[in-house]
Amino acid sequence: MASLDSLQAALDYRFRDGGLLERALTHRSHGMPHNERLEFLGDSVLNFVVSTLLFAEHAEMDEGDLSRVRSNLVKQSALADIAQTLSLSVHLRLGEGELKSGGFRRPSILADALEAIFGAIYLDGGYPEISRVIERLYRPVLAHIDLRTFGKDPKTLLQELVQGRGHPLPRYEVLATRGAAHDQLFDVVCEIAPLGIREQASGTSRRAAEQAAASQAIAAIEALGPARRTARRRKPAQLSLPVAVAQDGAQSKTRNTPQDKT
Amino acid sequence: MASLDSLQAALDYRFRDGGLLERALTHRSHGMPHNERLEFLGDSVLNFVVSTLLFAEHAEMDEGDLSRVRSNLVKQSALADIAQTLSLSVHLRLGEGELKSGGFRRPSILADALEAIFGAIYLDGGYPEISRVIERLYRPVLAHIDLRTFGKDPKTLLQELVQGRGHPLPRYEVLATRGAAHDQLFDVVCEIAPLGIREQASGTSRRAAEQAAASQAIAAIEALGPARRTARRRKPAQLSLPVAVAQDGAQSKTRNTPQDKT
Repeated sequence: MASLDSLQAALDYRFRDGGLLERALTHRSHGMPHNERLEFLGDSVLNFVVSTLLFAEHAEMDEGDLSRVRSNLVKQSALADIAQTLSLSVHLRLGEGELKSGGFRRPSILADALEAIFGAIYLDGGYPEISRVIERLYRPVLAHIDLRTFGKDPKTLLQELVQGRGHPLPRYEVLATRGAAHDQLFDVVCEIAPLGIREQASGTSRRAAEQAAASQAIAAIEALGPARRTARRRKPAQLSLPVAVAQDGAQSKTRNTPQDKT
Repeated sequence: MASLDSLQAALDYRFRDGGLLERALTHRSHGMPHNERLEFLGDSVLNFVVSTLLFAEHAEMDEGDLSRVRSNLVKQSALADIAQTLSLSVHLRLGEGELKSGGFRRPSILADALEAIFGAIYLDGGYPEISRVIERLYRPVLAHIDLRTFGKDPKTLLQELVQGRGHPLPRYEVLATRGAAHDQLFDVVCEIAPLGIREQASGTSRRAAEQAAASQAIAAIEALGPARRTARRRKPAQLSLPVAVAQDGAQSKTRNTPQDKT
């Protein structure tokens, strides 16, 4: 295990009780005491600090928006990303089995350890300190997302985009299903007739294929340039950044050339 | 709306900004500003305070136990129960439609308003005050539950009970399904052969019927009196209090007489 000085510097927090930090870094595969109770505590303090931050700084967001943004800020992949900026993996204490199978790279192990560290800082330094630490780690994340679209799936984003331009809803159609029952592939097309857009994609579920097709349709609309109706209100570039990629089974994509670029 | 003095006395908290309390009591059906953003904030402060309390006072509980107890303490029905001890319903501000349909009795509306009040107290008085208020409201709840069993479903409780007595797992069997496809009723039996227990119950799903049968089997085991093997470790009466009732479709129950009460 590397010296914990660099980690404490990266966190901008120095522990009075270094044992708490060591416990936060100890996966259950390594033995007792491990970090799971600290993770329980850290999960709830993280949720609270992020909620407070969003509530105080975004009076324009309603409850649904606040919940959507919060859940995407505290989810496993977001925490694993922050853990990587802290080089957390070199500090983890894992059992033999987890070490050999590359557990120090597993997003779940990284995310859990980061939550445990938050719990440990709260116990060690109290609420003002953990609030400061979490806010400092999340500022760069918040600076790079568009809160209006963050965490929305491609189908939702596409629907809002075409409605904002005054067009009818996108139409999805399953063109074919291929393969055996346990290993099916769905071919789906997403059509927005008034824009001449017809995007085809495949996925291991109908939902995954539709999300992939919606993702391509958003790119196709952005390639059309700003719509006249909403050009003053909406910067289309803002839609391209946070589009969630349909990861759950999207396998291939076939970009059709839009037939009509009016 | 009744005077808010009585509510503040029941909460043991007096607002500096009475407008915050009024907003916390305002359902969206009544108009803006309503309580939904405060509910977002209150949900997370409640979760945090309860987590801190459980973590600090129950070193014997592992992460799974802590999560199980927390989620059952902060769920809608638990919050609605606390809301009733505060007579919250007489203070709610509802729109015409909700008023007529008895919205002031709806558990979801009561629970949401209570969470909003927690958010409002946090904004008005800071963390120490909301921590004190929540802890005071939850002390009586915590005093009346058995943390080892709280929130566990009957099947889980029954399994732990029979394993604790050194018996094999309960056996569940579907005896019959009755009715049309959209309105089926399942007849299930739960058998613990070494104890001569055979309990039969019905439900609108296999799961609901099994939970109902397990619930009856627990009662039947308790009627047998304390087991010799574990009499010193386990008070059987503790199992009867927090048994979650299988509400999702249990319709009738047929108590069979245990064939053998050794």
